[in-house]
Amino acid sequence: MGSGVGGGSGEEAVKNKQVIFRDYVSGFPKETDMEVSTTTVKLKLPEGSNGILVKNLYLSCDPYMRIRMKRIEGPNAFSSFTPASPLPGNAVAKVLDSGHPDFKAGDLVWGPSEWKEYSLITATESLHKIQHTDVPLSYYTGLLGMPGLTAYAGFYEVCSPKKGEYVFISAASGAVGQLVGQFAKMLGCYVVGSAGSKEKVDLLKNKFGFDNAFNYKEEHDLDAALKRYFPEGIDIYFENVGGKTLDAVLLNMRVHGRIAVCGMISQYNLDQPEGVKNLMCLIYKRIHMIGFLVRDYVHLYTKFLDTVLPYIREGKIVYVEDIAEGLESAPAALVGLFSGRNVGKQVVLVAHE
Amino acid sequence: MGSGVGGGSGEEAVKNKQVIFRDYVSGFPKETDMEVSTTTVKLKLPEGSNGILVKNLYLSCDPYMRIRMKRIEGPNAFSSFTPASPLPGNAVAKVLDSGHPDFKAGDLVWGPSEWKEYSLITATESLHKIQHTDVPLSYYTGLLGMPGLTAYAGFYEVCSPKKGEYVFISAASGAVGQLVGQFAKMLGCYVVGSAGSKEKVDLLKNKFGFDNAFNYKEEHDLDAALKRYFPEGIDIYFENVGGKTLDAVLLNMRVHGRIAVCGMISQYNLDQPEGVKNLMCLIYKRIHMIGFLVRDYVHLYTKFLDTVLPYIREGKIVYVEDIAEGLESAPAALVGLFSGRNVGKQVVLVAHE
Repeated sequence: MGSGVGGGSGEEAVKNKQVIFRDYVSGFPKETDMEVSTTTVKLKLPEGSNGILVKNLYLSCDPYMRIRMKRIEGPNAFSSFTPASPLPGNAVAKVLDSGHPDFKAGDLVWGPSEWKEYSLITATESLHKIQHTDVPLSYYTGLLGMPGLTAYAGFYEVCSPKKGEYVFISAASGAVGQLVGQFAKMLGCYVVGSAGSKEKVDLLKNKFGFDNAFNYKEEHDLDAALKRYFPEGIDIYFENVGGKTLDAVLLNMRVHGRIAVCGMISQYNLDQPEGVKNLMCLIYKRIHMIGFLVRDYVHLYTKFLDTVLPYIREGKIVYVEDIAEGLESAPAALVGLFSGRNVGKQVVLVAHE
Repeated sequence: MGSGVGGGSGEEAVKNKQVIFRDYVSGFPKETDMEVSTTTVKLKLPEGSNGILVKNLYLSCDPYMRIRMKRIEGPNAFSSFTPASPLPGNAVAKVLDSGHPDFKAGDLVWGPSEWKEYSLITATESLHKIQHTDVPLSYYTGLLGMPGLTAYAGFYEVCSPKKGEYVFISAASGAVGQLVGQFAKMLGCYVVGSAGSKEKVDLLKNKFGFDNAFNYKEEHDLDAALKRYFPEGIDIYFENVGGKTLDAVLLNMRVHGRIAVCGMISQYNLDQPEGVKNLMCLIYKRIHMIGFLVRDYVHLYTKFLDTVLPYIREGKIVYVEDIAEGLESAPAALVGLFSGRNVGKQVVLVAHE
């Protein structure tokens, strides 16, 4: 049985703003594909519930959410968002009331929640309790959350990296890419990233310590650009964008290279994905191309935290976030991922603790 | 210094038929891209040579040879054939004269030779001496040669196969595919192959023991065909053809599936390769797609022979060859690979021992 918190008995209903996913999207998502509306909620769990009632503090805007905006048929790693329902998504939240023995009022958690001010979470098995609060809480949507573990597992487990190798990262200033680059530098790799603006390129070179970086929008010949930055070729490609970038990378991979396929953001808004033509390079160069999802690496989360927290405290790993304020700004923040409006990890601040 | 053999002193020149590669090819290769001509050769090594002089007995027709018919620029796993020169290619041959301590007249060898009746081989380091002659000598172009090792390494080393897994093989009656299927059946996998004629489909089902097989030319919807043969999906795809087949397979792979990329014969004759669209499946299904070349597995050859020779002798592995007679038939035999004229491994018989 739950124990109320937050002032008052919790029996009175309070307003609860939420972001509604209107209907399946084709092409680039627009703000109007979502709608902010208000309902009410009692800040107390229903009698007998073994879920938790939370106040959402930070929401995570993630590229994979675009995949869930499509109508997905048949078995798939992702399920569609439900039209006319609040968006599900990762959040940092504070427990207000709990019917679950693992959680109590006042706990901070991160994991699957909803784009609402307050949520009743019944599927608590994927929630993590936040133990370390000497770092920004918002980091648990990014650096210390799913994108951080994605970078960690994707680089160390999938890429089999070795000191001195040549590493290329696309969408390199994003939630995952900026970390992959820093991990690769710490291992002693040569690291180049691509991004979509001068500001992002400057971040990569000056803040994240990449050896070099370029603005892909200014390169009409990606193959030539890669040959310029990697005259010796690429050992490891951390793939976030797909399409033409992948085709150009394939031409520039080295023998026994590895491609960790984390995402393909350039393809998410297309009705028909672009065809990738240079797959014969997989044979010529004996390349391993490995698709992965962070959900297969959740068992590494504690090890990941133990590794990364000290680096954060010592300033050896830095992280750039783009924080939109207020739930009303969430639709624009999410849509902005697909035009590259965000600089760094896109977060929505819903409420202060 | 060499020791002559084969009757006479070897000082007299004899006729030496050869197949000349005329010039770089675009589109489907034609017989007229090659030319049979005759020169002469003395059946004795030049003074001081440390090579070997061989009589070629069987030539191997291999799909990868099409790749070498293109003008290849920059570093690549393959080099172009030299226009207006005899075709290089794998052969089974008999040593007539040797200036190399590892070989003596009368030895049987297989490995890189030329499309000629007689060849002087100076690059002997990739030649294998044939020790076991109780099996057909022609097998050393296929089952016991490069294609056999390709199947062995590709299946056991690249695919990480497990008993009970669902295995799909394209170009399944070819030099490599027929073996992969038999290896997979011996391990207890469910095996389906595709091929391009009723005769080949019958071979797969009735001679090689595949669980099922289909003629891809009669399937206008490959995705639907694969769903019919693999209602549970595909764990392992042994890729020999590329293009549309790969796209359909990607849709039907199971989670944590593996694709061993051995060849992409459907793409070799295209000026622009087809685009493969369904690579997002690599992520959704966490697929490992692994390009490989047999040259990285030559160290396994002895183990391979020790494994496979007993199976051949016991009739547990069978092998179908398509043997063209006479060097004059070699251009048509090679060209026929790309229309699927061959049934089984395509060999050219140049001379009996």
